[in-house]
Amino acid sequence: MSAAHSEGAFLSDIREQPAALERLLETLPEMKAAVRTIARQAPRAVRLVAHGSSANAATFGVYAFGMLPGWTAMRDSISLSVYYEAELDFNDSLVLGLSQSGYTPDVVAYVERARSLGALTVGLTNDPESPLASAAEIALTLSAGVERSLAATATYTNELALLALLAGYAAGRGDAVVASLRTVAELASEAMSALEKAARPAATAFVDIERMYVMGRGSEFATACEIALKLTETCKVVSGPLTTSELQHGPVVAVGPKLPVWAVASSDAVLPSVFQAAERIRHAGGALLVGGDAADTVEGAELSLRTPAAPMPLLAPLLSVLPGQLFACGLAEAKGIDIDRDSELTKVTFAL
Amino acid sequence: MSAAHSEGAFLSDIREQPAALERLLETLPEMKAAVRTIARQAPRAVRLVAHGSSANAATFGVYAFGMLPGWTAMRDSISLSVYYEAELDFNDSLVLGLSQSGYTPDVVAYVERARSLGALTVGLTNDPESPLASAAEIALTLSAGVERSLAATATYTNELALLALLAGYAAGRGDAVVASLRTVAELASEAMSALEKAARPAATAFVDIERMYVMGRGSEFATACEIALKLTETCKVVSGPLTTSELQHGPVVAVGPKLPVWAVASSDAVLPSVFQAAERIRHAGGALLVGGDAADTVEGAELSLRTPAAPMPLLAPLLSVLPGQLFACGLAEAKGIDIDRDSELTKVTFAL
Repeated sequence: MSAAHSEGAFLSDIREQPAALERLLETLPEMKAAVRTIARQAPRAVRLVAHGSSANAATFGVYAFGMLPGWTAMRDSISLSVYYEAELDFNDSLVLGLSQSGYTPDVVAYVERARSLGALTVGLTNDPESPLASAAEIALTLSAGVERSLAATATYTNELALLALLAGYAAGRGDAVVASLRTVAELASEAMSALEKAARPAATAFVDIERMYVMGRGSEFATACEIALKLTETCKVVSGPLTTSELQHGPVVAVGPKLPVWAVASSDAVLPSVFQAAERIRHAGGALLVGGDAADTVEGAELSLRTPAAPMPLLAPLLSVLPGQLFACGLAEAKGIDIDRDSELTKVTFAL
Repeated sequence: MSAAHSEGAFLSDIREQPAALERLLETLPEMKAAVRTIARQAPRAVRLVAHGSSANAATFGVYAFGMLPGWTAMRDSISLSVYYEAELDFNDSLVLGLSQSGYTPDVVAYVERARSLGALTVGLTNDPESPLASAAEIALTLSAGVERSLAATATYTNELALLALLAGYAAGRGDAVVASLRTVAELASEAMSALEKAARPAATAFVDIERMYVMGRGSEFATACEIALKLTETCKVVSGPLTTSELQHGPVVAVGPKLPVWAVASSDAVLPSVFQAAERIRHAGGALLVGGDAADTVEGAELSLRTPAAPMPLLAPLLSVLPGQLFACGLAEAKGIDIDRDSELTKVTFAL
């Protein structure tokens, strides 16, 4: 709303993401040895552990490893190992612990335990001096720069990029992923201003909204989770992320004028499920807001924010998250909420 | 509200659960051979696939297999195999497809694909004549009886029980699990009436609530997911399930007078994380509603619904879900919503 808001920390962080991605790609020569060690491992299981935005990036990792090298990857339970001390077999496991700060206590504890039980452990963090970087056998730095806002942005998108790089090298396609990521950085940079002009003012129409669903499927479920988290933490909107299928298994009954739905729509094999769910939402009288490279193909959308197509479909989530971040930013402005001024949250979360 | 409501399908289904659990245990002799085949497998990975309430039960399965035989289990991505056709290695995988109806198309498609790629496939469904039962090498029947309501109840709790049985036999502790489940059925039956008397009237104070968080951790995260789904589908309350840790990584900022939090509190190693999150919620001015065998140990709760302690801590989710179901039932009555009369949902979901 005010000039102070429009130059807020969250907005400047969102705009910074293409540059942060380019910064990550510049560190590739230093990372190559570590990446080769990981790529050689051919693990029986890739176990990703994280909380918050990093957990949403971990969700993307399941798809990156599944689609590129064909490795079985999972978001593993931290509780099972750290608190319940289950006796799992960590031999031939690759463990990826993700934490923007590198201080998340139980992610560090999980990595320490997994390492002592024989896993190859990798820490992905923005702070190479953090406990997570020390605990893991291999530390990879996100190079996202300093985020000014509490809400994660470039640390999230650089986590996606780093996971795609690891999966790409593991599949012998690292160079193709690098080239595609360079293009993604350019496309994001070019599209940013137009997306911002469309998304932020559109958000003002939803100023009274307190609840939203955010739906996505496949690799875009990570995007749905991340947009939902942004809406919750920056706008105090309760916004459950749902797969397009889950939405139809019950939650669709709540959709209506007071419950709009954000849909992530990218051109991939699960797009028909987005169309099917969108039809149900229109029928229920819920406003439909769509972002992604196939946004214009979803009928009846009240707001359609088309992003450029990524040169490799797997990388679409690096672009489709942008309209959601910008919409959340505009909605926070419209609601007069400045999370970085008003909340007691801290950038480092020491939650149990 | 009216007599018709108080005798509604959802309530009678909730009450029916102890009997349904006993019915499942009666079918054990017929299941033994199948269970032994599964227990002998010592798979490298247990892959659970499902949607809706069955997916929440699958989340519990990760803990059951992790804590009893120490097997690595995951909620696998259906999209990755069925839509993206990722080339994963299914050899030495145990696949458990869960579907109340047995008709969920992409769960069936996943099981068919996994079977063709070498997995041992098991279908858990309430309908032994369903496509899922035919697609899997081994079909196990939930024996939950006919649920009158659209909202799953006994099919969910019997899925938990069946997963615990499979995990128990795999760990050589099947008889102990059977004995504990018999006790759980008795405890649930004894506690039902008192829980109902406490939960249903208490819900009327929340008649204007449209948003809730439901938090749980470890094996009780499954319970949090299931209670959140009940609140959404029967009361149209948007209610994101969150782990106690996730809540503190951002979403806590939205907690306040209009956003109460339901906490699942059981006496296990993650209970301190529930206490920590509860402290944050009280500080934020949000009402705290607690259910579980440690409900009375959480300070400052507006509503505390203590359930009996399960003889085996892993089985606590079979009991801690009851107060949440009953609260949802009371809230739906207070709101005047009868999902079984008013909605277009069907018991069999054919969503993509």
